[in-house]
Amino acid sequence: MKFCSECGSQVSVKIPEGDNRERHVCTDCGVIHYINPRIIAGTLPVYEGKVLLCRRAIEPRKGYWTLPAGFMENGETTAQAAARETIEEAEAEVDLHGLYTVFNLPHISQVYMFFRGEVIEGKYGVGVESLETQLFEEQDIPWNELAFPTIYRTLKLYFEDRKTEQYPVRIEDLQPPYRKH
Amino acid sequence: MKFCSECGSQVSVKIPEGDNRERHVCTDCGVIHYINPRIIAGTLPVYEGKVLLCRRAIEPRKGYWTLPAGFMENGETTAQAAARETIEEAEAEVDLHGLYTVFNLPHISQVYMFFRGEVIEGKYGVGVESLETQLFEEQDIPWNELAFPTIYRTLKLYFEDRKTEQYPVRIEDLQPPYRKH
Repeated sequence: MKFCSECGSQVSVKIPEGDNRERHVCTDCGVIHYINPRIIAGTLPVYEGKVLLCRRAIEPRKGYWTLPAGFMENGETTAQAAARETIEEAEAEVDLHGLYTVFNLPHISQVYMFFRGEVIEGKYGVGVESLETQLFEEQDIPWNELAFPTIYRTLKLYFEDRKTEQYPVRIEDLQPPYRKH
Repeated sequence: MKFCSECGSQVSVKIPEGDNRERHVCTDCGVIHYINPRIIAGTLPVYEGKVLLCRRAIEPRKGYWTLPAGFMENGETTAQAAARETIEEAEAEVDLHGLYTVFNLPHISQVYMFFRGEVIEGKYGVGVESLETQLFEEQDIPWNELAFPTIYRTLKLYFEDRKTEQYPVRIEDLQPPYRKH
């Protein structure tokens, strides 16, 4: 940030009075601009025991497999954001079965939130941000071609929890260097 | 947002190519400015069965009772944000016992996340954003003087769950008109 989004003047980086962190503060109108972490919401879409994955058509990690997920937008709930991303990336409507994984990625100021979901009538397609989409049995998951650690961990936890059919909400911090897969 | 924070030129509101929502787009350098929901992290600090509440010294809801909570900052985890806010508002260090409540407030584009916690050695004070802080027994909670619906719901759920000592993560959407207390 170099300029004030309210008045167009230059901003400086300083600690405002009563604060304890550096902020971007307008040198003219005085407005303090806060920059906060962003939420990425997604689903773990399942149909007849198989998991729906999308191969990314865009960077980062183009060509790698992901769960449908994306930046939460203003005016929606986390569940709505997750369902919307699943439609956009996999053309799949899901019955949501609750929040499942939460990941903190403090080094990039992101919080991921995945919901479990059942793919309605097993219908899915290929959204514009995907090269292809596919339902995978556990033994066929492309573990070495997953896009992000958040995807790897959500799938690992899911197949583990499926043994007992208990799916408590899992919260984990993920920071590089990531554990070996 | 009226001006581009990158180059200082005016922004216009339009739907960028490949997008489906209106964004603030710079008329000069073309940068798209995304505005996303913010996370508010806090704790439910408990000591010897009593809950630590803070009476707010600042607007909104000055003079009303709250759980310690505030905007998550870049570079921290949700748990770190919750613990930091508890130190800032109640001068209390807490042993965190896991994520407990998640609230979507889509009308103001906020997501609240509360962690249960034990106040270490029962020590607490009055932070600069608080008028006073106090440990409350369940029967003494000032139900009609709570600052926000998120506080009311977290306390209600906690006292209910305490009967069975099971505290699964609870996720709720809170939108006006709020249910009658």
